Amino acid sequence: MRVAILAHERFPDRAKTAVGVLRYGDREVVAVLDRTLAGDRVNDHVPDIQDAPIVTSIDEVDDIDALLVGIAPIGGDFDETWRPDVRGALERGCDVVAGLHCFLAEDDEFARLADEHGAELRDLRRPPEDLTVSDGTASDVDADVVLTVGTDCSVGKMTTTFELVERARERGIDAAAVPTGQTGVLVADYGIAVDRVVADFAAGVVERMVEERAADHDLLVVEGQGALCHPAYSGVTTSILHGAMPDALVLCHAAGRETVHGYEHVAVPSPGEYADVYESVADPVSPTRIAGGALNTRRVDSDERARERVEEYGDAIDAPATDSVRFGVDPVLDAVLKSVAG
Amino acid sequence: MRVAILAHERFPDRAKTAVGVLRYGDREVVAVLDRTLAGDRVNDHVPDIQDAPIVTSIDEVDDIDALLVGIAPIGGDFDETWRPDVRGALERGCDVVAGLHCFLAEDDEFARLADEHGAELRDLRRPPEDLTVSDGTASDVDADVVLTVGTDCSVGKMTTTFELVERARERGIDAAAVPTGQTGVLVADYGIAVDRVVADFAAGVVERMVEERAADHDLLVVEGQGALCHPAYSGVTTSILHGAMPDALVLCHAAGRETVHGYEHVAVPSPGEYADVYESVADPVSPTRIAGGALNTRRVDSDERARERVEEYGDAIDAPATDSVRFGVDPVLDAVLKSVAG
Repeated sequence: MRVAILAHERFPDRAKTAVGVLRYGDREVVAVLDRTLAGDRVNDHVPDIQDAPIVTSIDEVDDIDALLVGIAPIGGDFDETWRPDVRGALERGCDVVAGLHCFLAEDDEFARLADEHGAELRDLRRPPEDLTVSDGTASDVDADVVLTVGTDCSVGKMTTTFELVERARERGIDAAAVPTGQTGVLVADYGIAVDRVVADFAAGVVERMVEERAADHDLLVVEGQGALCHPAYSGVTTSILHGAMPDALVLCHAAGRETVHGYEHVAVPSPGEYADVYESVADPVSPTRIAGGALNTRRVDSDERARERVEEYGDAIDAPATDSVRFGVDPVLDAVLKSVAG
Repeated sequence: MRVAILAHERFPDRAKTAVGVLRYGDREVVAVLDRTLAGDRVNDHVPDIQDAPIVTSIDEVDDIDALLVGIAPIGGDFDETWRPDVRGALERGCDVVAGLHCFLAEDDEFARLADEHGAELRDLRRPPEDLTVSDGTASDVDADVVLTVGTDCSVGKMTTTFELVERARERGIDAAAVPTGQTGVLVADYGIAVDRVVADFAAGVVERMVEERAADHDLLVVEGQGALCHPAYSGVTTSILHGAMPDALVLCHAAGRETVHGYEHVAVPSPGEYADVYESVADPVSPTRIAGGALNTRRVDSDERARERVEEYGDAIDAPATDSVRFGVDPVLDAVLKSVAG
């Protein structure tokens, strides 16, 4: 599948989805659209991911199957300056895929163009219509299931999920991600944004995905959302924990994060306490353990200091730890595989 | 407000909503519609609630403001045998209020009749359009907030909620319920069914209700849903716990319940363990304690044996306990008031 990624004025630092697709996706990326960086290449800005030319508009891109909207502004609205690119893609019969809060399919012009040119508008945040409550059966699947959980939002759950899958595949394990947020869904071209599902069905939709993916793979890494003691998002976190019934957990944390991001009046419990809370809430439904930890040390300057922080973190949660990006996920993957085998 | 309640073929045992409105509601109930019991009175079947004649159809009822659908079949669908009554109500300009999964306002005939006769169709399960995520601020309200939580579904959270409010009012306290499920919403004519809200907004909607009700009342009793270790509904439970930020919890349990209702492969943790899990999940967001317990002893034959079970239950959770219906809520209300004052 050949795609172009729209990332105007935001590539690469504020284009998490675009970078995710380039780093972890299976699609061939023909071009990135960013009018402020046109003429550069992806690798001029991010060296270790799939390379592609950066261009001004869809007019400079030929022969693609789909245009992905690879940025999500705060609020999730559509930016009208993107309209000519989406229009141009649809007019040549290309699908357009987006994870915005507002749905492309509800835009009259886009709906008409898609219809006229036989193109599909895929709004990844729109949940399926036929959802149900959980049956409490995900633990019966014929695959090992790992769930990344966190002490807060934006601590590296999605990154750790995809790093674990990628590294497991490199070792010859038939691994797959179960993405639960719009960015992960766009990256993997599979999944459902659980936070947009009716609350009663949130665990059910995770169970359904786990059972579906387990039929085709041996190791599943479910992407967690939010945090169990988050003032706003804990419901989604709990639904994923109980819906997925994981065999092992990987606890993700950001070095130095002491209060909940955006809720600075709420303290984040210590990693050790947090590990206990996750285990005690999981236990009655489907017992599981924190098998490993991922510490995001992006804000720690030296590798040496980062190593120390990772070591302290591992001690605190009593499990092998790493920084998934800085040091790679091998120690945690080893621990997870040992845990699910045991 | 004068109302009639539709409860065909299900009054009283399978008409939880109808009985709730008669027991706890502020509305004057002019009649109950149940074609199988027509000619009887409510008190022939349930002695200790508001009395009213039971009639065959809306044609025998005059001068009401609204018809309430007081039953909710499994699946929550509309039963076509109710159509003549709903039609009759709308034709005379009466509002029709329902908590069904399918929405009356989406029925073409009902929508047309409501429009023609200036009547309103109120679907209580339909969430408001303008929901947002929680700000984590409910603990700042100028009212004491109590939340009923449970070890499972159907253990008496709604009943205990309304009993606490009623008894507090009898003592001269300006108390109000914050209903979170369609039955409670219909009973209190206020509230939002949290299980139907988009998962991301579930805590936010509870926070909004608590802040709204706290402006007018001194003591709020928030109706909990599901259970924190329930395979399907734990997300809703957690959202209510963190959204409401209660000053005290009342733990509801059913005597003898050892497995999760409908999920018999999942054991219910002991009440003492469950109390600890609720407290440890609440703690990082807004610390609270189990101040009292409500044990549903409906299936225990003798009062003496029921008293023993209540005492054992109180010991297990280390708090005063009662059966809210059999023995009244006074001991738990005392404990709650002491806890929120302390």
